[in-house]
Amino acid sequence: MKELVFGHKSPDTDAVVAAKAFSYLQNQLGYDTEAVALGELNDETKFVLQHFEEPAPRIISAAKPEVDAVMLVDHNEAQQSVADLKDVQITHVVDHHRIANFETAAPLYYHAEPLGCTSTILFKLFKQNEVTVPAKLAGLMLSAIISDTLLFKSPTTTPEDEAAVKALAEIADVDYQKYGLEMLKAGTNLASKTEQE
Amino acid sequence: MKELVFGHKSPDTDAVVAAKAFSYLQNQLGYDTEAVALGELNDETKFVLQHFEEPAPRIISAAKPEVDAVMLVDHNEAQQSVADLKDVQITHVVDHHRIANFETAAPLYYHAEPLGCTSTILFKLFKQNEVTVPAKLAGLMLSAIISDTLLFKSPTTTPEDEAAVKALAEIADVDYQKYGLEMLKAGTNLASKTEQE
Ligand SMILES: [Mn+2]
Ligand SMILES: [Mn+2]
Ligand SMILES: [Mn+2]
Ligand SMILES: [Mn+2]
Repeated sequence: MKELVFGHKSPDTDAVVAAKAFSYLQNQLGYDTEAVALGELNDETKFVLQHFEEPAPRIISAAKPEVDAVMLVDHNEAQQSVADLKDVQITHVVDHHRIANFETAAPLYYHAEPLGCTSTILFKLFKQNEVTVPAKLAGLMLSAIISDTLLFKSPTTTPEDEAAVKALAEIADVDYQKYGLEMLKAGTNLASKTEQE
Repeated sequence: MKELVFGHKSPDTDAVVAAKAFSYLQNQLGYDTEAVALGELNDETKFVLQHFEEPAPRIISAAKPEVDAVMLVDHNEAQQSVADLKDVQITHVVDHHRIANFETAAPLYYHAEPLGCTSTILFKLFKQNEVTVPAKLAGLMLSAIISDTLLFKSPTTTPEDEAAVKALAEIADVDYQKYGLEMLKAGTNLASKTEQE
């Protein structure tokens, strides 16, 4: 039975990428899932998807019309999630935030770690399940980690986040320092502002 | 900084054993933890600890007088936990129940799977972290899985629970079928009742 996978409302790069990465992993493991988003993508995320020639996810405003069960990434609090969350079963959560306003009727898979980015946790799950990360997905995942950690400048950054970016950069064949600065710039619209001056 | 690890109030065998197993694993990984219990042990758990010559855990009624942070196993709901849970930080949870009445102020490690027993999840974590399960602990962990699954008769039993018992039985060198029936009997007090007749 198909399930939808999505990150939080007002999606950032991790919310979009972690949904794509977890959906890919779960499909490799035998689930039938689709990664979707809960709102318009920001400029940084658009830059990332264009750079790696990845299509933007479909945007949904409700889950129950399509599925009975969902998987959450990069969030768990109900107010950050799909409007009709209470009408569907949550079978999986992968997240790096505190837990609050979250309740289920049944046991579930819940994997959270206090790391800088959901995509860092997902990279560990790929390794644990011995699923190879495709080059394009590796590019997306390192983008999410650079986004959440501000290229390792954020106080939430851990050594695991840095190690994941370095390993993913080898898979994606990306100069992550150079690319990361371009990506963060795209998010702040510095590029277009500079052009106008 | 030391942390206490404990299962739910009115402890069953999984609550006691999972605390011991997770505490052992975390100490191997560099944490300083002590497994404790939130109440008197039941007859089944006493039988298990005697069989494998393992001391009973210390019983606590409050955490904050001793520590600032705790790790929960085999439960997450506040009403099943230590009375002063709100006064300490929860840094880790390993569980196989639904999530409810659970909230943290900070990100944490939370690993739940819809399996028959917390000790089955812990066995996977030992393998993922490449930590060897000592023979005595293997005996305790297979006891917890047999207890929670009623020797694989409970509808919550999964193939992973059965596989874990078989692997743990090899490490512990235990005939799990014979031992499991004795253990379940000890829990129901059938043995002592038969003696009296
Ligand atoms: Mn996010
Ligand atoms: Mn994130
Ligand atoms: Mn229990
Ligand atoms: Mn249990």
